[in-house]
Amino acid sequence: MAATGASGTNAVRYGTVRDNVLNLEVVLPGGELLHTAGQGRHFRKSAAGYNLTGLFVGSEGTLGLITAATLRLHPVPEATVAATCAFPSVQAAVDTTVNILQAAVPVARIEFLDEVMIDACNRHSNLNCTVAPTLFLEFHGSKQALAEQLQRAEEITQYNGALNFSWAKEAEERNQLWAARHNAWYAALALRPGCKGYATDVCVPISRLPEILVQTKEDLQASGLTGTMVGHVGDGNFHCVLVVDPEDAEELRRAEAFAYQLGRRALALHGTCTGEHGIGLGKRKLLQEEVGAVGIEIMRQLKATLDPRGLMNPSKVL
Amino acid sequence: MAATGASGTNAVRYGTVRDNVLNLEVVLPGGELLHTAGQGRHFRKSAAGYNLTGLFVGSEGTLGLITAATLRLHPVPEATVAATCAFPSVQAAVDTTVNILQAAVPVARIEFLDEVMIDACNRHSNLNCTVAPTLFLEFHGSKQALAEQLQRAEEITQYNGALNFSWAKEAEERNQLWAARHNAWYAALALRPGCKGYATDVCVPISRLPEILVQTKEDLQASGLTGTMVGHVGDGNFHCVLVVDPEDAEELRRAEAFAYQLGRRALALHGTCTGEHGIGLGKRKLLQEEVGAVGIEIMRQLKATLDPRGLMNPSKVL
Repeated sequence: MAATGASGTNAVRYGTVRDNVLNLEVVLPGGELLHTAGQGRHFRKSAAGYNLTGLFVGSEGTLGLITAATLRLHPVPEATVAATCAFPSVQAAVDTTVNILQAAVPVARIEFLDEVMIDACNRHSNLNCTVAPTLFLEFHGSKQALAEQLQRAEEITQYNGALNFSWAKEAEERNQLWAARHNAWYAALALRPGCKGYATDVCVPISRLPEILVQTKEDLQASGLTGTMVGHVGDGNFHCVLVVDPEDAEELRRAEAFAYQLGRRALALHGTCTGEHGIGLGKRKLLQEEVGAVGIEIMRQLKATLDPRGLMNPSKVL
Repeated sequence: MAATGASGTNAVRYGTVRDNVLNLEVVLPGGELLHTAGQGRHFRKSAAGYNLTGLFVGSEGTLGLITAATLRLHPVPEATVAATCAFPSVQAAVDTTVNILQAAVPVARIEFLDEVMIDACNRHSNLNCTVAPTLFLEFHGSKQALAEQLQRAEEITQYNGALNFSWAKEAEERNQLWAARHNAWYAALALRPGCKGYATDVCVPISRLPEILVQTKEDLQASGLTGTMVGHVGDGNFHCVLVVDPEDAEELRRAEAFAYQLGRRALALHGTCTGEHGIGLGKRKLLQEEVGAVGIEIMRQLKATLDPRGLMNPSKVL
C-alpha cells in the first residue's frame, strides 16, 4: 500500500496511506538501509530537510524496496453507523456526495455503486438493495454527534430525491455491507464467468465529479462493454470495472480505448489518471500528459539518481 | 510557508501546509517552469508518479523558487468557541492536551503558554488571564457538536485539576485571544526592551510531550536565561522564546547551548529538531543526527541533481 500510495473507503475522513505514513525503512538499490524520517522517529509533523517519506510513498518500488512502515493511528470511534441510500439517477447520487462534503458533514465513508454494481452485489453477497444508483455511507463519532450527522445527511439525500435511506446500526449488518463493497470486484467478475477484470481509476476535483460520472455512465452504456461503476466518490475517485473476454482481442482493445479515453477526460477536468492504483506499465503515456515534459524530466532525474543502474522494478512508472 | 513546510495553531485539526498544498508552480534553477502535480491540476489524491509537490514543500528554496501554490480549502465552521484554561502546573496542562487528543475530541486549536508567557501577554495585549500554565483552545463545528466538545474538554481539564475554564463565545473576545497568541513573540521581546528573540522549535510524539515540556521548563529556569514557552502542543510541537542581549556574547552562547541541548533531547525522544521553522543554517548539524548518514546522503544527491550548480539558497539545509 505504501509503495502504491494506496487508499480506500476510509480515505475521505482519515486520508490516504500518504497522509498516514510517518516513516519508512527502505532498502536502497545499493543495499544501504534508509529510514526516511530518521531511525525510530515518529512525530505528527516536521520541517527537517527534504520529505523523503513522501518521495518513497507511491514510488511503486522503483526507487527502493520498502521493508517497514511506521503509521499514524486514529482513535477507534465511540460509535459507528452505516447507511445505504438509493437514487433515481447517477446525477442525484453524486450531487448528494458533493452536498454532504460541502456541508462539512465529517462522513467517514461515502461510496458510490451504480445499478449494475448493486445488482451484482445483491447476487454475489446476498444483499437486498434496491437496484439503482446507490451510496453506501458510514459515520463515526460520539452517539450524539452521529445522530446529528445522520440527520443532516438524510436531509441532503431527500433534497436530491433519494428513493430510500436505510440505517445499519448493528455491527453485523454493517460488516455485511462493507464486505459486499470490498468484494465488489469479485461480484463484477461473476457477471461473466471465465472473463477477466480491467479497472480504471481516475480522480477529479469534487466539483467536476457529477459531470464525469454521468458522462462515463453514458459512454459505458454506448460501448457495449460489460462493466460496473464503483468509487470513493468523497475523494473524487471512481472505478469502472470492465469484465472482458480475454480471448476476444477486439473487445480487449475496446476496453483499453475506453480506459484511455476516460483517463484523458479526467485530465481535461484538472484530474489525475490514477487516484490510488498507480501508473505501473499501463498508464505511462497518461502520466506524461498529466505532469508534462518538465515534470517527467524531473522524475527521470530522480530515478536516475537514486537507482542509476535501473535495478528497481524496471520500466514501471516512467 | 510552502517553502518552509510551515504550520500554526490550526494544524492540529486541518494539517500543516504540507497537507494542504495540492500543486506548486516552481521556477527550477535552469529556468524551466515546473507544475509539481501537472499544470492546472487540483485533486484530493493521486498515485501518479513521484510526489514532486511533497518534495518541494519544505525544501526551503534550495531546489527551486516557488511562484504559485494551489491550496486545499476547508469549509468555514458553522460555529466557533474559544476557551482558556489555567493549570497548577505545566504537567497538568500537557496531560490535559494528551487526554483531549486521545479522547478524539476534534479540537481545532490547542495552544500551551507557560506562566511567563501569559504574564507577558497580559501586559503586551491587555489580557486578564490568571498567571499560570495555560491552554488556549478553539472548537469548530455545528452548535450541537460544539456543546458536546466543550463539555468533554472541560471534564478533562477538571480531571487534571484545572484552576478555571473560561469560554470566549463572542467573535470579538476570541479575536483578542488569538491576536494575543499570535503576538506572543512580541510580548516576549517586550520583557527585555532592546534585546533579541531566539526561538526553538522541537516536536515530539504526543506521548513524550509531558516529559520534555516539564524537563525543558526546569532547564529554562536553571539556565538563568529570560525565556517563555509557547506551543502547538496538539502537534507535539513547542517553542522556547529566549530573549537575549545581543551585546552579551556569553549569554548568546548560553542560549545556543540551551537550544542545541533541547534539540538533542527531542531527538532522543523520537522527535524532530524542527516542527515548522525549518533547518536553515542553524540546525544543519541537528539534521544530520536526525536523519542519519544515509538520509543526508540521499538529500545531498537530490540537491546535486536538481540544483547541480548550487544556485538556490546556497548552504541552507545541507
